[in-house]
Amino acid sequence: MFVFYRCAPPQSKSFSIKCGPNVHYKVTSPAGVRSAAPYPLTPNSVLIVTMDTVSETANDSKVPAVHPIIFQASCCLGSLAEISLDVDADRDGVVEKNNPNKGSWKWGPNGHGAVLLVNCDSETTYKKTLDSEVDEINKVSDLQDMSKMILRTNGPAELPEGYKLTMHISQTTSENVRVFRPRTSNAFYGKYYIMVVGTDTLTEEVPYLGGKTELAFFVEGLRFPDKDFDGLVTINLSLLEPCGKGFPETPIFTDTVVFHISPWIMTPNTLKPVEVYVCSTNDNYTFLKSIKNLVDKCGYKLKICYEYMNRGDRWMQDELEFGYIDSPHHQFPVVLDSPRDGDLQDFPYESILGPDFGYVTRNALNEKVSSLDSFGNLEVSPPVTVNGKSYPLGRIIIGVAFPTATRGRNMTQVVQDFLWAQKVQEPIALYSDWLVVGHVDEFMTFVPAPDRKKFRLLLASPDAGYKVFKSLQKKGHGEAEMFPGLPEVISVNEILSDKKLQAENRYVQNCIDWNRDVLKKELGLDDEDIIDLPILFKVLEEKTGPRAVAYYPDMVNMIVLGDQLGIPKPFGPKVNGRCALETEVRSLLEPLGLKCTFIDDFAPYHKLLGEVHCGSNVLRERSPFRWWNLEL
Amino acid sequence: MFVFYRCAPPQSKSFSIKCGPNVHYKVTSPAGVRSAAPYPLTPNSVLIVTMDTVSETANDSKVPAVHPIIFQASCCLGSLAEISLDVDADRDGVVEKNNPNKGSWKWGPNGHGAVLLVNCDSETTYKKTLDSEVDEINKVSDLQDMSKMILRTNGPAELPEGYKLTMHISQTTSENVRVFRPRTSNAFYGKYYIMVVGTDTLTEEVPYLGGKTELAFFVEGLRFPDKDFDGLVTINLSLLEPCGKGFPETPIFTDTVVFHISPWIMTPNTLKPVEVYVCSTNDNYTFLKSIKNLVDKCGYKLKICYEYMNRGDRWMQDELEFGYIDSPHHQFPVVLDSPRDGDLQDFPYESILGPDFGYVTRNALNEKVSSLDSFGNLEVSPPVTVNGKSYPLGRIIIGVAFPTATRGRNMTQVVQDFLWAQKVQEPIALYSDWLVVGHVDEFMTFVPAPDRKKFRLLLASPDAGYKVFKSLQKKGHGEAEMFPGLPEVISVNEILSDKKLQAENRYVQNCIDWNRDVLKKELGLDDEDIIDLPILFKVLEEKTGPRAVAYYPDMVNMIVLGDQLGIPKPFGPKVNGRCALETEVRSLLEPLGLKCTFIDDFAPYHKLLGEVHCGSNVLRERSPFRWWNLEL
Repeated sequence: MFVFYRCAPPQSKSFSIKCGPNVHYKVTSPAGVRSAAPYPLTPNSVLIVTMDTVSETANDSKVPAVHPIIFQASCCLGSLAEISLDVDADRDGVVEKNNPNKGSWKWGPNGHGAVLLVNCDSETTYKKTLDSEVDEINKVSDLQDMSKMILRTNGPAELPEGYKLTMHISQTTSENVRVFRPRTSNAFYGKYYIMVVGTDTLTEEVPYLGGKTELAFFVEGLRFPDKDFDGLVTINLSLLEPCGKGFPETPIFTDTVVFHISPWIMTPNTLKPVEVYVCSTNDNYTFLKSIKNLVDKCGYKLKICYEYMNRGDRWMQDELEFGYIDSPHHQFPVVLDSPRDGDLQDFPYESILGPDFGYVTRNALNEKVSSLDSFGNLEVSPPVTVNGKSYPLGRIIIGVAFPTATRGRNMTQVVQDFLWAQKVQEPIALYSDWLVVGHVDEFMTFVPAPDRKKFRLLLASPDAGYKVFKSLQKKGHGEAEMFPGLPEVISVNEILSDKKLQAENRYVQNCIDWNRDVLKKELGLDDEDIIDLPILFKVLEEKTGPRAVAYYPDMVNMIVLGDQLGIPKPFGPKVNGRCALETEVRSLLEPLGLKCTFIDDFAPYHKLLGEVHCGSNVLRERSPFRWWNLEL
Repeated sequence: MFVFYRCAPPQSKSFSIKCGPNVHYKVTSPAGVRSAAPYPLTPNSVLIVTMDTVSETANDSKVPAVHPIIFQASCCLGSLAEISLDVDADRDGVVEKNNPNKGSWKWGPNGHGAVLLVNCDSETTYKKTLDSEVDEINKVSDLQDMSKMILRTNGPAELPEGYKLTMHISQTTSENVRVFRPRTSNAFYGKYYIMVVGTDTLTEEVPYLGGKTELAFFVEGLRFPDKDFDGLVTINLSLLEPCGKGFPETPIFTDTVVFHISPWIMTPNTLKPVEVYVCSTNDNYTFLKSIKNLVDKCGYKLKICYEYMNRGDRWMQDELEFGYIDSPHHQFPVVLDSPRDGDLQDFPYESILGPDFGYVTRNALNEKVSSLDSFGNLEVSPPVTVNGKSYPLGRIIIGVAFPTATRGRNMTQVVQDFLWAQKVQEPIALYSDWLVVGHVDEFMTFVPAPDRKKFRLLLASPDAGYKVFKSLQKKGHGEAEMFPGLPEVISVNEILSDKKLQAENRYVQNCIDWNRDVLKKELGLDDEDIIDLPILFKVLEEKTGPRAVAYYPDMVNMIVLGDQLGIPKPFGPKVNGRCALETEVRSLLEPLGLKCTFIDDFAPYHKLLGEVHCGSNVLRERSPFRWWNLEL
């Protein structure tokens, strides 16, 4: 938008204009009378020029950018105004000038479009609220969590009378975003940052500063992508023209920018740990000591949640899941709080939320929350490629009821919808409702490996369990005792002669096999990518049918800290003083360079139907892969 | 899935198996005991083989198909069972055998995935209900509206005892689809077609017929894509294995097919008309006769809605919009009923819905319905290409409030959501709230053209209007009379000296110019693709601000029937016995091969703030372009 005025050469009485096919112009005067060329030159004649800029690459932009550029005025009439609303559309952390693709989003390394974070952390640690729930900026540090947007103008000191700049967003967008700007007056009172548009404010005038100036705006994301929100946010800036007394102003130029809100991203076991979380209870001192030793050895940080906070709820895995959000200019971890809401329910908000540590939750309003909503039932695979399609951030894994089941427990739809809507780790639904507790971490985990796909899938396997016990019997150790020293003590021969246990484990193996097939298909795995750990289950007759629990500590339910594994101590039969189950597991995992530490969780976890993994949680570094580079 | 049994060679006592890395097998006997190879050969040994088939092209399938193929049994043990759930995934109208891509959807000419229609017509014309609202099939003709799905099996006469086939869908899918099959018994009573899965039935056993057989299923779509439904429907078939007394059956093989429900597709003015709809009222006899003459001349069918049905509501354009749904095997027109609900409200359901004429509507539950919900405010462009992105079905155009307006009327969100969710004609929102009636058809239409983009956009233009009147004055026709013979009669000089009218039309031109810019940008148009028709507006002072209506009959509000245009007769000033406005419009349109018929709609339409287009509707042939070939 350019404005000629005031400084016409003496004697000039009229002017005319020539321009190319993509340039639009319009001549007005304060009286508003528009006439045909040659145009009379009145003292305040205004020439407005806009130009369509066509994207250089075909098909890369839904909305071609229309923006003003310098107009080569051959008549030298004087001042021009250039206006551009700018964002970091090339995702390099810097707001470039008038990117032709700023008005659209395209995934991939050759894509474009700016990135926005949900401001879901809390700048304050005392009397916390989520920053996104406050419609003002109280600490300058909060600007870090927002994306910069710059209004660049280059023109006369003032716009012609009655013209004004206005920023505007749609009703829907106002639920997802707020825009702030520093105040432009020098008053000593009042807020330094003013909300321009956002909740309840769809349109607002913004100052035209005059000359060659930049006005910085700060854009704050309010909501994560979800079933009803694709994560895209559009912000418009229009130049309004007065239409005379009695008529509304009409826009004569509109500039549009688009942001994509960062999805919430999970971190697989193959990423480097940062902190390990575990609960302290009145009965888990030995367990806690073992975990502390392991974490100390690895050099990570241990965070203990004490009893005043956990109130006896030891299932640190189940109340929360760690993830992160990422943009070119900033990133931070975000804890997803489960709708499970056991006695640990206040922990994520009270103890984890803070500066640069975000918080998000989903409330199950009309849905029944079940054990499947615990986040031991929410895992993520390492990066995989499936039939040529790559998932560089891995795929989310959850457990649900088997589809042919006429009734069964499921993860609440509201959490499932959230997970699917993040898009960058396309989820896989496994069948976990065959278990009493019903969590996928009861039969599977991933460990890093130096070869092949850089990881192995570990699966619980009753077949592998029976193989170990039969082999012991064959080698003359039939009288060796499972659970040595514990009240549950039982010989290998007794275990093998239990027909009921055999039938139960055949059923369990069938359930795991179906999941194995799904995992192979959805993660593109070969049999060589899978290791079967020798674990037996037993089946309890529940009201709603038979469901399984681990017969002895479920070794697959382990904590993975780099190449160090904290594995539930199985209390298997001893041969030459060594636990045959531990020996077998070592022989499967140590060739991959993994170090096995067997941790006694029998009384405080196993007997309560959980194990090491259920009782811990790991905050990990973010993936080096940036989500916007995904080809979706 | 293959089953060896019964016909082992005499003396055989055991067998073993070798197979490639993607083949999975499992040996069971009726007793359920699984053992290691070599397997003992009991009379009912069962060998189950499945194989992963990897898609041949990389990255074309989210879900790789796992399906059974013929197993090259070197041991000649006998019968094999092959099971495949098949659909028309290559979209040629025929259900092919075991398409490797049947489990996923991909847009485009090289895409894949089967297509489903919403069964939104009514096979009966008396006591109508939408077929999709009835969970049974009462007429065989209804099968036409469904997609065929075939269960192909090739194997022994019966499955081993306890094994069974089951079809299953998710809770969400059950709201969008029903599956029927013919009954397999020969009973003379009961329904011939049985619902297998659908509303309230998520899983159901299906018969295994034995030998080499095909069992046909018929899949019925129930819901159009919408904000909360992407149009994809997944149906699964599993083979369940018995796990012994007290345990649920577990699936050992699952085949999955995916359908995409056809979107509702609008037809632009450039498609061939089939039928013209118009209302008969007690005051529109002459108008009706003119329309009949025009339609007869063109050779199309005229459908008149009589007063007992329209109850005086003459706005045929506003109550409904014609569109269609399309699949490789079948297609039919579908009327979208507006939430406007004037006195014409029963017409779409009562008079249009019928065999192979579908019906869909959206109810504004908690939203205020405004004049912008009338479908004179819903149009579609001809096919366009914008910055290399092609829209072969055109783009939907609606009118809303200008985004900077603090208050204003809008099309209801429920209708907007529906339109956006169809995806194949990505909508454009224009600014139409500056008009009293507020419909886009008051300032724009499309006509066919032999050159350039094969169409022109016609826009109402006050500037072009003033140009005609000024030129008349200049040529000495200042005393010529507008509205000759009507009470409103006024001279050219008087019109031109009306400063208020000038100011009003400057405002209107500004409003149209903003829309012109949006249309140029979103449809990729050049100025040469646009024709400005000379139309003046006047502005009324309404409670909520000034809003515009056409000053004389709004010629852009025309009916387009191939190259024949039915244009509101403008009653312009006569020069040499000819209307100067008609002459101008003819000079703009006739060079394109278009024939202009000016129709007097002054009293029964123009005075009531509508014109020819508002008072008519056109059912058109479907586009030759098939929607699934779109590259989305």
